[in-house]
Amino acid sequence: MGQEHRRKAVVLFSGGIDSTTCLAVAKAEGFEAYALSFFYHQRHGVEVEAARRSAPALGAREHLVLELPLDRIGGSALTGHEEVPKDVPVEKMSDRIPATYVPARNTIFLSFALAWAEVLGAADIFIGVNALDYSGYPDCRPEYIAAFERMANLAIRETVEGRMRIKVHTPLIRLTKGEIIKRGLELGLDYSLTHSCYDPDARGLACGHCDSCILRKKGFMEAGIPDPTRYVRD
Amino acid sequence: MGQEHRRKAVVLFSGGIDSTTCLAVAKAEGFEAYALSFFYHQRHGVEVEAARRSAPALGAREHLVLELPLDRIGGSALTGHEEVPKDVPVEKMSDRIPATYVPARNTIFLSFALAWAEVLGAADIFIGVNALDYSGYPDCRPEYIAAFERMANLAIRETVEGRMRIKVHTPLIRLTKGEIIKRGLELGLDYSLTHSCYDPDARGLACGHCDSCILRKKGFMEAGIPDPTRYVRD
Repeated sequence: MGQEHRRKAVVLFSGGIDSTTCLAVAKAEGFEAYALSFFYHQRHGVEVEAARRSAPALGAREHLVLELPLDRIGGSALTGHEEVPKDVPVEKMSDRIPATYVPARNTIFLSFALAWAEVLGAADIFIGVNALDYSGYPDCRPEYIAAFERMANLAIRETVEGRMRIKVHTPLIRLTKGEIIKRGLELGLDYSLTHSCYDPDARGLACGHCDSCILRKKGFMEAGIPDPTRYVRD
Repeated sequence: MGQEHRRKAVVLFSGGIDSTTCLAVAKAEGFEAYALSFFYHQRHGVEVEAARRSAPALGAREHLVLELPLDRIGGSALTGHEEVPKDVPVEKMSDRIPATYVPARNTIFLSFALAWAEVLGAADIFIGVNALDYSGYPDCRPEYIAAFERMANLAIRETVEGRMRIKVHTPLIRLTKGEIIKRGLELGLDYSLTHSCYDPDARGLACGHCDSCILRKKGFMEAGIPDPTRYVRD
């Protein structure tokens, strides 16, 4: 496998703060970034539009957006009609897994990343999961990522025939939201291009009160940077 | 979790010999079967129609068909324009992974099964993989299945919070195609409802010469049962 093949990476890219920073880190580490986004019938489908606008600006070599019918499986406030929780204090967020949890979401996303990685000849997959300032999702923890990586190396032709070894990179896993934003600013990111809110209004404006908005505000506060987001209600 | 929850199982169901037998085995073991099929833009999309017809006849409690854009990822003769290999002798099939391999297909399918299992409260997933008479696919081997199961138990809320433990059942993994058909006949299956061919003609008739047709013919011959399939060319 040629040099150029070893440098490709598939980057899971929602267009939020974490995955945008993750893409910038992959580029800074010398990878050619193949950004992968999903329209999974999330109520904040507007994030896919943010991702479409920002992927070229971030220097992604390609950007693939796949539609997945996760609404037909259900089990989440993000794909159904259940209410998105509001104004949960940060310190309470990881007490229990919230209504915005989507069953097996990262497993499904990483599975598609694995398929695309094999076709591209990319041994590297980046995912912006975070085990510190997070919403208590089980599929954001280091032990889950390690188990996925192990499974991946038994799953596909390129690894089983010994031509590559899949590595799942999680450069943000031990950072706070503030540290993530600082890292992104060092890399020259413009966070006004990102979208975080789980429950935007019809115009796409952030609600300011869901877990994702609360973590976003905390991040900018910790980083000591003005938050560029326009919220419906602060 | 109530008794009725422990008895639900998600069964991956393509409508072919193996997954049809697998569904019958799940039922015979006392599970309520929730059949899950995918239209992944496979050239033999006719198999999904066979699955739709047979799932109710087999007594599936529900049948969910999801559309996945695997054609946009590519890398397979089954989702692209590459030719499907013909007349490969059975003993040569597992020498190398063939052109009909679909990158990460079982990982993607099992990930959706995992998501649906969590929503249903089903701890059991059935998949009709076979490590004996198979086409050399890496994601049909016992070590792959074990790694997926381990990952699954770290991935979802229900397992991480200790309310269930996911088990991936592979009742056919050590059987020959002939043994699978005999088992199905014991369970009363009508294999004329199943579809196997990777490269059917416009009417949906089996080609008789792809790996899947060859393994199917071998199975009926070994079982000593007339093959109910109408082939374009024997």
